[in-house]
Amino acid sequence: MFTLYTTFVAMIRITEVSSPQNPIVKKITALQEKSRDRRKSGLFVLEGIRELNLALGAGYKVESLLLCPELVPPGKKEEILRNQGIPDHVIHVSLQIYRKIAYRGGTEGVMAIMQAGKHDLEDLSFNRKNPLVLVAEAPEKPGNIGALLRTADAAALDAVLIANPRTDLYNPNIIRSSVGCLFSVPVATGTTQQIIDFLKLQKLQIWCAALSASKPYHEVDLSVGGAIVVGTEAAGLSEQWLSNSDSNIIIPMQGAIDSMNVSVSAAILIFEAMRQRGFPRV
Amino acid sequence: MFTLYTTFVAMIRITEVSSPQNPIVKKITALQEKSRDRRKSGLFVLEGIRELNLALGAGYKVESLLLCPELVPPGKKEEILRNQGIPDHVIHVSLQIYRKIAYRGGTEGVMAIMQAGKHDLEDLSFNRKNPLVLVAEAPEKPGNIGALLRTADAAALDAVLIANPRTDLYNPNIIRSSVGCLFSVPVATGTTQQIIDFLKLQKLQIWCAALSASKPYHEVDLSVGGAIVVGTEAAGLSEQWLSNSDSNIIIPMQGAIDSMNVSVSAAILIFEAMRQRGFPRV
Repeated sequence: MFTLYTTFVAMIRITEVSSPQNPIVKKITALQEKSRDRRKSGLFVLEGIRELNLALGAGYKVESLLLCPELVPPGKKEEILRNQGIPDHVIHVSLQIYRKIAYRGGTEGVMAIMQAGKHDLEDLSFNRKNPLVLVAEAPEKPGNIGALLRTADAAALDAVLIANPRTDLYNPNIIRSSVGCLFSVPVATGTTQQIIDFLKLQKLQIWCAALSASKPYHEVDLSVGGAIVVGTEAAGLSEQWLSNSDSNIIIPMQGAIDSMNVSVSAAILIFEAMRQRGFPRV
Repeated sequence: MFTLYTTFVAMIRITEVSSPQNPIVKKITALQEKSRDRRKSGLFVLEGIRELNLALGAGYKVESLLLCPELVPPGKKEEILRNQGIPDHVIHVSLQIYRKIAYRGGTEGVMAIMQAGKHDLEDLSFNRKNPLVLVAEAPEKPGNIGALLRTADAAALDAVLIANPRTDLYNPNIIRSSVGCLFSVPVATGTTQQIIDFLKLQKLQIWCAALSASKPYHEVDLSVGGAIVVGTEAAGLSEQWLSNSDSNIIIPMQGAIDSMNVSVSAAILIFEAMRQRGFPRV
């Protein structure tokens, strides 16, 4: 049993959904849970006002907008609806349904089914002479990718490249842990070989972070155009990267464990490059 | 229904446990789940060979050692039993029980109930003229505390001080995410006022990381003895810290979000201090 009725408010059509059996509820759940469903449909689910604004700002299109009227902060609904790229049809979901489908505990009451973006290397273009790029090879944890994207956003990196990705970029954990930076940072994916070819074509230095490296990172000139390349915590970088590197760099460590989180290591390297560059304004 | 029998192998007494009703199983579960049980008993649960070795190396004492014979790698059992601080009584648990009580998916087959350590400020002593200390005020996520401890280990910091802790240090998520660095880094807790008093007594500079700060971190002399102080991502540092600071420092950011993970920000600051100090060997 469920009610479904449609009203017209100004130019926006509203559908009310309060049944867990409603197809939109099932669609959201499938897109959240299944990478295959996201790939097949070219859609993904996003939550949160900031995330939505960042995605819209980056040119993403909304397929379906869901609002939970009890949760949307006062005045925010009108602000959201004024955006470009919002459909003229909004779905109101009940509190019960929203709590069921919302991936995180947030209370903003805003979710959207979005059309996925393109993440091709050939679409990247750099606006400065000495671009700074981060490459992550086969990162396994969505949370790490999210943290890398946050750091990339803070440093206004020219791009983040994911080599041999093991998960699609629209994994809900990546979106959540990136706090929306997935939409503010240029991101492209490719095989390791494709990315190496791309970096060489762009005449960028390749700096591979490796525990076996001998060159301390702060003694390398990171002010020229280049890519900081990091591997996984467990396996490090593949031989393919290490043998195509201009410098294999290491963060000197002297603890009992000597294994920092990959997002932490990457941030140390990125901000040393930023320091050497004098923190240029974009 | 359960079997419990005891055999003697050399000098080590072995008890076999294969029932989920066994008191040791219930004790482990309670210590993992309840901060109150840990505080009351002065005990905590640890998993993993590396974690056990690091804790033993730091002087921690084992109350009960549990091994799952099917999972312990060949030769490791003898190595573990040779350590100082291991009781002469080992509990063998069945695979089924181990999988039930092991907090993480690890396959090492080693768990222990340990006696908690002391984490008093007055027990800290520093071996160099210009100690480098990290202070985290009221960090809320165990995973962030673990990441901070990993970075502190890698930089061989003189201490990590947790001000106004919201969780006890032996939260299983802290132990796990610190990959054992909780045992390799000197850690103390106290109120913000106690820690400020301690830092002043030790004549350490107080550098507060704050988004409202005006001094870029890399323009501050971080080579003298001092404490890098970080707050939570949500609330930042309290006024108490900011007003007792020698420098309020900022990491220049220029993204859409400008909010890095606290463990990432702390690492950037710590390794800038290390760079300025020339990465001294401990």
